[in-house]
Amino acid sequence: MSAADEFLQANQGYAANFTKGDLPMPPGRHVAVIACMDARLDPARALGLEEGDAHVIRNAGGRASDAIRSLIISQQLLGTREVVVVHHTDCGMLTFGDDQLRKQVEQKLGTPTDMSFDSFTDLAQSVRDDVTTIKSSPYLLKDIPVRGFIYDVKTGRVSEVQ
Amino acid sequence: MSAADEFLQANQGYAANFTKGDLPMPPGRHVAVIACMDARLDPARALGLEEGDAHVIRNAGGRASDAIRSLIISQQLLGTREVVVVHHTDCGMLTFGDDQLRKQVEQKLGTPTDMSFDSFTDLAQSVRDDVTTIKSSPYLLKDIPVRGFIYDVKTGRVSEVQ
Repeated sequence: MSAADEFLQANQGYAANFTKGDLPMPPGRHVAVIACMDARLDPARALGLEEGDAHVIRNAGGRASDAIRSLIISQQLLGTREVVVVHHTDCGMLTFGDDQLRKQVEQKLGTPTDMSFDSFTDLAQSVRDDVTTIKSSPYLLKDIPVRGFIYDVKTGRVSEVQ
Repeated sequence: MSAADEFLQANQGYAANFTKGDLPMPPGRHVAVIACMDARLDPARALGLEEGDAHVIRNAGGRASDAIRSLIISQQLLGTREVVVVHHTDCGMLTFGDDQLRKQVEQKLGTPTDMSFDSFTDLAQSVRDDVTTIKSSPYLLKDIPVRGFIYDVKTGRVSEVQ
């Protein structure tokens, strides 16, 4: 069975026990989380989020660069007033360079590209960089808390990056 | 207490009971999910995902436009071979127009912008459009399944968009 069919099947159980049909659109805890798409990281379980609590933005690496559009909408239209960035140990973004992936895309798909893939070599610095990107964006609110965490895929523990 | 501090506190319980420290980096179910950042949607709980199963990419609207970089990495480096797009009822993206938000950003932050916010007016069509964007991207694999779902925030149920 395809994953899509498995999702439809698994959802029947979720919907059968669903009790949260009256939640408002704006996040109840007024926070946006930006996290990596990594399969091993479940931001809701790892951070104690229930349905209705927080915007969760995810992409390869949990990079701020891809998240500006979403954060503008989150802050301007849906009232979030705090941002938390979550990267993690053993991230795929540490395993390749942008040049290498550009070459692979051209070889495998026949499509030349100068796309930036936002890979990084220093995990803690990648978190600091993304906190800075968010704090300094002219499209985002100033004077709200923006903090950065690392999730350890071996222990399930998050720690703050200073 | 800030949400960030609450996350650190909630994580202590998650880490204390953590038993999934040996998962490999590539998603076990070889699938990438693209979903809206909406607080009411928890893709893991709603679709039956456990840690290690799937890449989960999320942004405002669950739009494919922001997700191409992440999907290239997911497919070329981490072996996913299926994509599922999940938008949802009562989406914030149905409540504004791009022009209106551009004006608000300029008024509130003093930053003129011609950014595309990818708002939409027809929910089912937005899913079809994003499936088409992914299927037709020269940067992504051809001949793999790409399917689109709508999650109903009132019932917790997902249904497929044809």
